Amino acid sequence: MALIVQKYGGTSVGSIERIKHVARKVAEAKKQGNDVVVVVSAMAGETNRLVALAQQVSESPDERERDVLLASGEQVSSALLSLAIKDLGCPARSFLAHQARIETDKAYGKARIKSIDSTRIKRALRDGEIVVVAGFQGVDEEENITTLGRGGSDTSAVAMAAALKANVCEIYTDVEGVFTTDPSICPKARKLDRISFEEMIEMASTGARVLQIGSVELAMKFAVPVHVRSSFTDLEGTWVVEEDESMDEVLVSGVTYDKNEAKITLLKVPDRPGLAAQIFSPISGANIVVDMIIQNASEDGTTDLTFTVPKADYKKALSLVEKTASVIQAGGVRVDPGIAKVSIVGVGMRTHAGVAAKMFQVLAREEINIQMISTSEIKISVVIDEKEMEHAVRVLHEAFVEKQGNL
Amino acid sequence: MALIVQKYGGTSVGSIERIKHVARKVAEAKKQGNDVVVVVSAMAGETNRLVALAQQVSESPDERERDVLLASGEQVSSALLSLAIKDLGCPARSFLAHQARIETDKAYGKARIKSIDSTRIKRALRDGEIVVVAGFQGVDEEENITTLGRGGSDTSAVAMAAALKANVCEIYTDVEGVFTTDPSICPKARKLDRISFEEMIEMASTGARVLQIGSVELAMKFAVPVHVRSSFTDLEGTWVVEEDESMDEVLVSGVTYDKNEAKITLLKVPDRPGLAAQIFSPISGANIVVDMIIQNASEDGTTDLTFTVPKADYKKALSLVEKTASVIQAGGVRVDPGIAKVSIVGVGMRTHAGVAAKMFQVLAREEINIQMISTSEIKISVVIDEKEMEHAVRVLHEAFVEKQGNL
Repeated sequence: MALIVQKYGGTSVGSIERIKHVARKVAEAKKQGNDVVVVVSAMAGETNRLVALAQQVSESPDERERDVLLASGEQVSSALLSLAIKDLGCPARSFLAHQARIETDKAYGKARIKSIDSTRIKRALRDGEIVVVAGFQGVDEEENITTLGRGGSDTSAVAMAAALKANVCEIYTDVEGVFTTDPSICPKARKLDRISFEEMIEMASTGARVLQIGSVELAMKFAVPVHVRSSFTDLEGTWVVEEDESMDEVLVSGVTYDKNEAKITLLKVPDRPGLAAQIFSPISGANIVVDMIIQNASEDGTTDLTFTVPKADYKKALSLVEKTASVIQAGGVRVDPGIAKVSIVGVGMRTHAGVAAKMFQVLAREEINIQMISTSEIKISVVIDEKEMEHAVRVLHEAFVEKQGNL
Repeated sequence: MALIVQKYGGTSVGSIERIKHVARKVAEAKKQGNDVVVVVSAMAGETNRLVALAQQVSESPDERERDVLLASGEQVSSALLSLAIKDLGCPARSFLAHQARIETDKAYGKARIKSIDSTRIKRALRDGEIVVVAGFQGVDEEENITTLGRGGSDTSAVAMAAALKANVCEIYTDVEGVFTTDPSICPKARKLDRISFEEMIEMASTGARVLQIGSVELAMKFAVPVHVRSSFTDLEGTWVVEEDESMDEVLVSGVTYDKNEAKITLLKVPDRPGLAAQIFSPISGANIVVDMIIQNASEDGTTDLTFTVPKADYKKALSLVEKTASVIQAGGVRVDPGIAKVSIVGVGMRTHAGVAAKMFQVLAREEINIQMISTSEIKISVVIDEKEMEHAVRVLHEAFVEKQGNL
């Protein structure tokens, strides 16, 4: 008998019919002799509806109250799914964050799970109940409601799987698994059978939206096998697991893209120690996540500093940077929201040289200008003009995935 | 400086515009130097929407999960109102039932409040915050979410006022206060300035829908002055307070009606001890509330027994009674859903004889046939044909309210 954590996203519970369908899948897993914990997102569209309500009430909604509002979406879906499971004659019980004791820090809107006290959930499982947990939400130590940020239900599911030492965390979604790239841009994209945690993290951090990055990091940390699969078929999806030797053979597992960043450049920054800290401290203080940072070589004692931030935050970041720029007497600030980041990811890069060179050649051949470059051990990202993004994805997929292995 | 509990119903928070309007009213009360606790219902229509969702998932929805679902409505409205208040620059903080520590029994769907631990709310008030409490919901001792039944937010508000020893509990609604009768039936109906707890309870139990009966009972028990008023004007509404001597002078405070009952008659019931218990035990066992019960005088060793039940329950009640009828060998069962109950209420009845006689005369003069009669110390109810209800309300209002005091 296995302990399975299943997570269903918003599309999978997007209507009463789909909720009933999920209830049957869950009941089936239970009938096969497994202990089943289900984590649900809000019904598709509901979180957006609630965000819009908050915006109508207040241009800059208070974060604590916004989280109370948003958490209601998962409350509704977890109650409805429990109702549907019970209607099939299976014992079930919904748990909201304060009942499941999912404790987080106080970072409203992007809280991190600190601990889960699974006593009550284990008791419910022992009693033969299917446990339905509202995803995306937590409570801080003072019982304030927090949310984990977009896609946070994935994290809820993996954290629950880790806390319960589950055999597998199944992430049910509206696609069949993790693809080599976005099939809507590149029809030759294909589903991956297996991918390592590290690769999945890089893919998530460079734009693949199938799993939230925090959830994969958590899965890696606790070695929780994650199975990404479709809630509409019974086909095997993609297993996200610990790296093994066979994975090295593949040079590039996927091509990803991200259109949700903007580029900010600080011109003629005096080149002296401590300035980077002075520039980035206010930005991180405002909870804005900086992705890429590039500092050009300095010749005349000044340097240009370029970095990217989420598009949603760039106006806020810009105003902070403009303040710093005047304090440190920089030459000015430029901003460009019309950019895209395209990346190739693969653990094979560790053992194969020349991948970056080939990537730059492919893009050069297509006359796509590279504005920024950033690399890690198993990933190369470039920032290009947003208009050239789809084209870049297609040619990189062709060069690295369709013609796998030819350097 | 006073401590004010304000309660806003679903219509008062039925749209973003109205929520902003309520936020301004709340902030105004705070600005005048008061401590303010606000209790909110779900946005108008939301509870019905959620009930319909539950019905779509399951014909007989599990009660625990139904309460989790329904409680989300007040979560949304309390978060939105807090957002709106904070947007005006006033500190505010929402409290759900588990945060406000509103502890109830385990009767899902009609829970009763057992206690409120107001420590956290008092701390928030001390910190200068406006406290926004989600109405209608509670938690049992195991942290399960419960709801108080329709209109339960009134009860939440009065209970909160009692726990905090508030100076007043203001119930904001879409009417200007408590009226002598329904103005849509009787244009001469007028708003009452004051009414006693006892009268309000009788009026609520005989059809006036402005306040939930449980909330008035609670207000009387803890002597919480209740001020029923409109959220759309600044006019004084109706104060529901402890009875004082001046109230005796008024013979009848209000004329009420109720079309939501049906009449069931058991014919030729053998007249022997224990039969009433045998008849009514299955009905109360099915959670059907019996209102009036009349047993006619027995001559031939049998008697006719007539009683009323909510229209929504009469088919269920009928099938139970038909079973009992065959067991006890009664002569048959008749049912009539086409009835209405019309009542007159007033503490003056205690000290004035002849009120009932005058009521019967007025109805007789109009040739309105009385089918059943039921009285209490301060109320007389008659059951008549549904078609004559509006006419009866008008003539009784004319005789007792418009021509006050002429017996």
